[in-house]
Amino acid sequence: MHLIHTITELRSWRQEVKRVALVPTMGNLHEGHLSLVRTAKAHAHAVVVSIFVNRIQFGVGEDFDRYPRTLEQDVKKLTAAGADVVFAPAESELYPNGMQRYFVEPPAIQNELCGRSRPGHFRGVATVVTKLFNIVQPDVACFGKKDYQQLAVIKGMVQDLNMNIEIIPVEIERAETGLALSSRNGYLTEDERAQAAQLSACLRNMAKAIEAGNRDFAALENDAVMYLQQHGWQVDYIEVRQAQTLTKAQISDNHLVIVAAAVLGNTRLIDNIEVCFSH
Amino acid sequence: MHLIHTITELRSWRQEVKRVALVPTMGNLHEGHLSLVRTAKAHAHAVVVSIFVNRIQFGVGEDFDRYPRTLEQDVKKLTAAGADVVFAPAESELYPNGMQRYFVEPPAIQNELCGRSRPGHFRGVATVVTKLFNIVQPDVACFGKKDYQQLAVIKGMVQDLNMNIEIIPVEIERAETGLALSSRNGYLTEDERAQAAQLSACLRNMAKAIEAGNRDFAALENDAVMYLQQHGWQVDYIEVRQAQTLTKAQISDNHLVIVAAAVLGNTRLIDNIEVCFSH
Repeated sequence: MHLIHTITELRSWRQEVKRVALVPTMGNLHEGHLSLVRTAKAHAHAVVVSIFVNRIQFGVGEDFDRYPRTLEQDVKKLTAAGADVVFAPAESELYPNGMQRYFVEPPAIQNELCGRSRPGHFRGVATVVTKLFNIVQPDVACFGKKDYQQLAVIKGMVQDLNMNIEIIPVEIERAETGLALSSRNGYLTEDERAQAAQLSACLRNMAKAIEAGNRDFAALENDAVMYLQQHGWQVDYIEVRQAQTLTKAQISDNHLVIVAAAVLGNTRLIDNIEVCFSH
Repeated sequence: MHLIHTITELRSWRQEVKRVALVPTMGNLHEGHLSLVRTAKAHAHAVVVSIFVNRIQFGVGEDFDRYPRTLEQDVKKLTAAGADVVFAPAESELYPNGMQRYFVEPPAIQNELCGRSRPGHFRGVATVVTKLFNIVQPDVACFGKKDYQQLAVIKGMVQDLNMNIEIIPVEIERAETGLALSSRNGYLTEDERAQAAQLSACLRNMAKAIEAGNRDFAALENDAVMYLQQHGWQVDYIEVRQAQTLTKAQISDNHLVIVAAAVLGNTRLIDNIEVCFSH
């Protein structure tokens, strides 16, 4: 396993390898990330995992400064998982002028759902992923479905800008309670962690109702919001959307996703569940 | 020489070639373009010339519809010049949804100089060049200095988004009168074409004055504007700028560029001249 910190060294390594898969991360790795690595290994001769806490996707007042940096443990986990390269550039390596000047600007979806409360977030994600793609030049890249909107933005970007990269979505890893694995779960107290399972439980109940034929999406959304609010959550959004485009769900759609973001204590959590059915 | 219209065919051709140079054009080729091709040939095993009149870089009321499309003659010229591939995609090939959704957004320079009167132009250029880069995956790409601001935007984009492509600037080709070669010269009447040489003459005079020690850039700019206005031109701008960054020229700079845009009759022409000196 190579630990690489510079673009020059990464490019030099890249020249010797035919088919490369990239797993972009912000580190503080959990089983969800390792599942991405296992998927990536099945699609390429070598797997590069990037670890970079990307300042330009964090908003003012968000957790950029306290986001956990755990490179040493991450490298151990990735070595065990069979990654070939960990690319962990310093901030000065990706932003040598102290800032980014050219941005990849996604369409209106960037201002919906998580984008409503995180202006600039998806622009920052699209831009750093473009930079990583241009540095690593992967043939495939794996993204978790946990960040469903991010996955939709990246898939849209790759298609629209003609990037020659296959994007592979990977299923969400969950704790036994149903809580979706996330680096931000580390911010939760023990009590909050137990309670956090309410979010995924809500989504499962909504999915079951839809599968059973309920098409009153607005009522289902409202019920879930009410339930979580009554249990002390601040709900950012819970919405039923069309899975491919993330546009508003129509009664005729047969591939939906229920996406949610809510704050428990000081921690903002996101989760989602897909619902596929035939009419 | 291969004439290729689809992305799929281009990608398939690309796999067999090691080092590729790209010359992006909008067609209607003149000696300036052929000079780009000759430069490109010296830097790669194969040269791809793209021909695409890119709707998203034209503003409302600009000449997108009447821009000359001359593919047959262009192919002949490029065959003679030794290009290996002409990539001439239909609009539906690059914009299959009828529009572009993800854009590469340049910094503030996109709203200065030509950007003042052509809002969205450099965003459209940066976006289509990114798409062409992702399709052709060239090792080098050649751009003419005639479009000096475009060259600066592309160089900035490649650096800032970590594109692994060498950008090679190519000198301006001029008619005997000094008029910089441009597809838009075809819009000029015979009289206008003779008069058009006044623009490059102005720039040469300014350059001589600066080389001779004159550092009153504002006065030089004003004199040139006045001269052209008195001869029937509508001047968009004439400015002395720092050559690398296109920021406002300082007295201490020793690599300057004088950039100009002006309208003669119904035709908007641009030109520039670099001034290098040691103090």
